[in-house]
Parts: sequence; C-alpha cells; structure tokens
Amino acid sequence: MRLVLIGFGNLGRGLTLTLVEKLGFLKEKLALVPKIVAVVDDSGAVIEETGIEWKRLAAMAKRGGKISSFPKAKRGELALSVIEDVDCDVVFELTPTNINTGEPGLTHIKKSMIAGRHVITSNKGPLVVAFRELQQLAKKQGIEFRYSASVGGAIPVIELARKLLAGNEAKEIQGVLNGTTNYILSRMGEEGASFDQILREAQELGIAEKDPTLDIEGVDTAAKLVILSNAVLGRNVKLTDVKRQGIRRVTPEAIKLAKEAGQTIKLVGVANQKIIEVSPKLVPLGHPLAVGGTLNAVNFKLDLAKEISITGFGAGPRETSSSLLGDLIDIYRTIA
Amino acid sequence: MRLVLIGFGNLGRGLTLTLVEKLGFLKEKLALVPKIVAVVDDSGAVIEETGIEWKRLAAMAKRGGKISSFPKAKRGELALSVIEDVDCDVVFELTPTNINTGEPGLTHIKKSMIAGRHVITSNKGPLVVAFRELQQLAKKQGIEFRYSASVGGAIPVIELARKLLAGNEAKEIQGVLNGTTNYILSRMGEEGASFDQILREAQELGIAEKDPTLDIEGVDTAAKLVILSNAVLGRNVKLTDVKRQGIRRVTPEAIKLAKEAGQTIKLVGVANQKIIEVSPKLVPLGHPLAVGGTLNAVNFKLDLAKEISITGFGAGPRETSSSLLGDLIDIYRTIA
Repeated sequence: MRLVLIGFGNLGRGLTLTLVEKLGFLKEKLALVPKIVAVVDDSGAVIEETGIEWKRLAAMAKRGGKISSFPKAKRGELALSVIEDVDCDVVFELTPTNINTGEPGLTHIKKSMIAGRHVITSNKGPLVVAFRELQQLAKKQGIEFRYSASVGGAIPVIELARKLLAGNEAKEIQGVLNGTTNYILSRMGEEGASFDQILREAQELGIAEKDPTLDIEGVDTAAKLVILSNAVLGRNVKLTDVKRQGIRRVTPEAIKLAKEAGQTIKLVGVANQKIIEVSPKLVPLGHPLAVGGTLNAVNFKLDLAKEISITGFGAGPRETSSSLLGDLIDIYRTIA
Repeated sequence: MRLVLIGFGNLGRGLTLTLVEKLGFLKEKLALVPKIVAVVDDSGAVIEETGIEWKRLAAMAKRGGKISSFPKAKRGELALSVIEDVDCDVVFELTPTNINTGEPGLTHIKKSMIAGRHVITSNKGPLVVAFRELQQLAKKQGIEFRYSASVGGAIPVIELARKLLAGNEAKEIQGVLNGTTNYILSRMGEEGASFDQILREAQELGIAEKDPTLDIEGVDTAAKLVILSNAVLGRNVKLTDVKRQGIRRVTPEAIKLAKEAGQTIKLVGVANQKIIEVSPKLVPLGHPLAVGGTLNAVNFKLDLAKEISITGFGAGPRETSSSLLGDLIDIYRTIA
C-alpha cells in the first residue's frame, strides 16, 4: 500500500518508527507491504514514487525537524500538490489541530477524498468542524475514512462502539478524555497540593503544554465528545453546542472531602440524545471512570450490555500509532 | 437465518427474549431475519421447520421450565438428533458447563460443526477441554465458530483483543473475571465483614450459587483465563496448567490494611507466555482492575498501545445476550 504522510511531528514520526518496527509482522501476518511515497509538512516534501527507503525514513523520524531540512527535500512542495500529484492509496492527515477552523487538515482531507485516496487522521479539528460533511464526501467518493486516533489515543473507542452497536443501542457516553487534566486532578488528590502547583509540575514533566488552556478549560474534552456524539450517537453537534466547565476551580480540599466519601473528582464529558456537557464530576472509587494518572476512560451505557468501559493511554506517539496502524490494517482488509 | 438453541436455561431464555425485542432493529438495520427452528434441552425439543412463532417463543422463555413441559414438545427428541435432522444455519450451544469433561456441550459443538452448522457458544467447558481441536474442526469444516459469551459475559473481550492484535503484540493478560468473588471482596472491603458473612449475603441475593466452590476457589476464573490464553496469546493450555488460589483466606483485616495503603484486593488471573495463574492480588485504587461490585475487568499489556482495559458486567442473561447477538451479527456479516 502506498502511503502519504501529511505532518511529520510527534505522531507522523511515531507512526513512521512503528511501521519500520512492524514491517516484518505486517508482511508475514497480513501480506501487507506498506510504502511511504511522500512525507510533507508546511516547509516542503520528501517524495519517492517507488517508496522512500525505510532506513532513510527511520533516520528522518529519529532526527525530527522541518521536512525542508532533510536531504533532497523539495522546499515549497506542499500538501495540496502532493495529494494531487503523488499516486497513493492512503493519506495520513497528521497536522496540528485547529478546533475552530479545522484547517489546514480539513482542506487536506477533502482534497484527498476528492482525489480518491483513503484517509486516516488523528486530527480532531476537521472532525469537530465538519464531521457529517466528511462522512458524506467519503461515501460519495467511495473511499474509506478512519479517525480512531482522534479520540482516546491508543484506545479503540470508536471501533469498540461500532462492535457493541451491532446489537446494542447506545443510551449515553461518559468519558475521561484528557490525560493532562486527569493527571492534574489525580496528583492534587495524592499530594493535597494546589491546582497551580501541580500544573507547573505537569508542565515541567511535559504532560501539560506551555499554554494548557485547551486542556484545563475542557475544550479538548469537548472536542472529543463532539466526535463521539456524532460518530456513535448519530448526533449532529458542534463544539459550540457543548456546555463546558474546566478544572481551574477544583480545590485540593474538594478532592479530599470527596475521597473521605469514597469518591474522586474527574473532568467528565457526558453525551446522550439531549445532553452534551463537560464538567468536573464526583466519581465513586471503584467506578470504571475513576482511573488515575494520565489514563483516559470511556463508559458506554447500552440497552443490552448495560455498561461497558474501556481504559488506556489517550496520548503518546507510540500509543497513538497503535490506532493509526489499526486503521491502516482495517482499510487494507476492507478493500482487499 | 435459521437458528437452533440447545439449552433453554437463563441464557437460552434471555437470548430468545432479546431476539424478540430486536427483531425490528435487526431487519431494518441489517436485513437480518432470524428464525428459531428448534429449541432443545435434555428433556425434549420443540421443532418447527418454518420457524417457531415468536409469540410462542416469548411465552416459553417467560415461563421457563423443561422443554418437555411445553405444548407440542417432542419428549425424548434430543440435541444430537435435532442437530442432524433439523436444517439450520447456526447452532447456539447454551447447556450448563462442565469444565472437566466439556460435556454434553463438546459433543453438541462437534456434531454441529460436522453437520456444517456455524456454532455460537457461551459454554466454557468445551473451550477449556478442547480449544485447539474445535478451532481446527471449524477450519476444516469451513464454518464460523464464536464464543464471546464464554469470557466476560457482555464484555467483548475476545473481539477487542482481535482488533487490538491486528497491529499489536499482546504481552500479558490480567483479569478480574468472576463477578461473585469480586462482589464478595468488594463488600468485605465496604463492610469490614468476614468472608463467610458476605458469602451468605451473596447467596441470599442470588449473586453466589448454593455451591459456590467453583467461583471462590478460582476455578471459574481459571477456566476463563485458559480460554483467553488459547484465543488471544496463542497458547495451548488446559485447566490443570493453571496455578490457582481462591479467596477463602482473604480477611477483612487484609483488605483494610490494603485500603490504608491506597490499594484493594482482587481475585486476578494473569497469563503471559510463561505464567498462567489465579490468586488474590493487591491492586492500586485507580487501576483499571480495581472495579467494584460484580463488575469484571480485563487488562491487556501490548507492545504499542501499552495497556488497554475493558470493564463491564460478566454475567446476567440479558447482558450475556449482548455477546450472543453480537456473535450472530458477526457471523451473518461474515457469510453474507
């Protein structure tokens, strides 16, 4: 399968290294032989129509940096012309997310679909802004569209939902969908320290970003909840539909009181056919959403199975490459 | 699709009522029209080659009792002759489990496969006794064989593993696989009461059986762990390979001490390429296996995704029918 990678940040590089590691496994187990024919970012592109050598790709992924800084890179050769000019089966859209405009990912995905490429993305922006439009375009173009990595990182949330929904009706989704806020709340509970103190610790550890607003204000959780609501509950909601409250005002005293009552406080997203909201909530210890550290968890309420929850790491380049690779294998099996 | 139900206890009756409830859903969403052409237990059979009326089936499922007690039942018409004589697509093997001999389920499943029927079972016995043999027979006969309901009740543990294992390598499985023991341990922790006291409470509530030996000695957990090891880790193990310790000797004091250290005690099954064992283990609060009540949980350690856990209800006729129906839909899609 001929692949194009748009975006070569943590996720693009992580996926590349995972593919290098799994080449033998994919060939032996699935007769799947991937070739990366182009890697492009906003500085330029490396293109080899016969497939870039894996050794060279591994070196690029390990070194990192802008594509234009690599040997034989074409400066100014950007995503849209690669999508149109380079023959490929699957486009991975892995550029940084903009949850307000969806760009540049949204245009990349649309152009790829129009060019008849299957699309795999980790990019929440395009899904939050134009979920239904992208679904319809994929259907019209007869191409496969996968976005497992956009929600829950390594956790196959959307595939699990599809499996469960074969026979079940989903009544409600609840999720702890943001590792940064979960880390902060968990540590506040363990240390009795203030929000600001633990936020600084998280920033030093690289768990929280320099500007952590999107995480701590619940915007990232809201974006993932919008994707889940549209993909699993069949709703047609946007980010502005989400009632949202972040974790800034959660105090260590509140967590302590909760703990004494056998509970904990988590930033929880809740969606059903009526409600879509994100807020700090009391969760009983022993409940599947009461996961610690940077873990994510999603709970489905279903008419037959009653409740199913899934937990795992919602971020990290290697973990997320599990979902990206899962999507690739799924498309390979679907079109085979 | 023409279905035969062998066994009409809680699970057979639960599946029947779920099918009645989902007839419209299955037809509209999947163009799947199930017909139950025979229901058989060790007392007799009800057979209608054109499909037993759903109204009649619902009444039978609600009333319960031996098949021979229903109107127009054929006494003495037993499973093996139904499997051979009644034309059908799928046999549901739902008889009580015997984890030592696998019978009578094992013979039912083999005969069904030999007769060219697809097989769905919830029965741990045949899988524990003859997993590889059944896999090979299914392959040789070119039929589909599904057993989601045998481990984790409503939780799609085995399907999730298959999905994850498309790209991941599974290093280890850990599971809280028995709702009865999890209820007892959880309640001992909440109440500070003794094992015997809580066991009596669980028996009164119908959560523990009159003879709870298989549960509390960890045999049920061991059986499920054997199935998971064979199905997911590619091992070829039997029940006698499992190192096993039950929960009889767990004291409320031990649970209290654990709690003071931020931990809890769970009956955990662990399997990797070397180990297969069941024993009470300390689990940190906030860990995905630290689930309360009658919940089950399974944790997979994977090379890419690192850790994924899934939690849900491991028993109950309606919950388990979610897995049985999921298997039916999966076979329907596979053979369509």
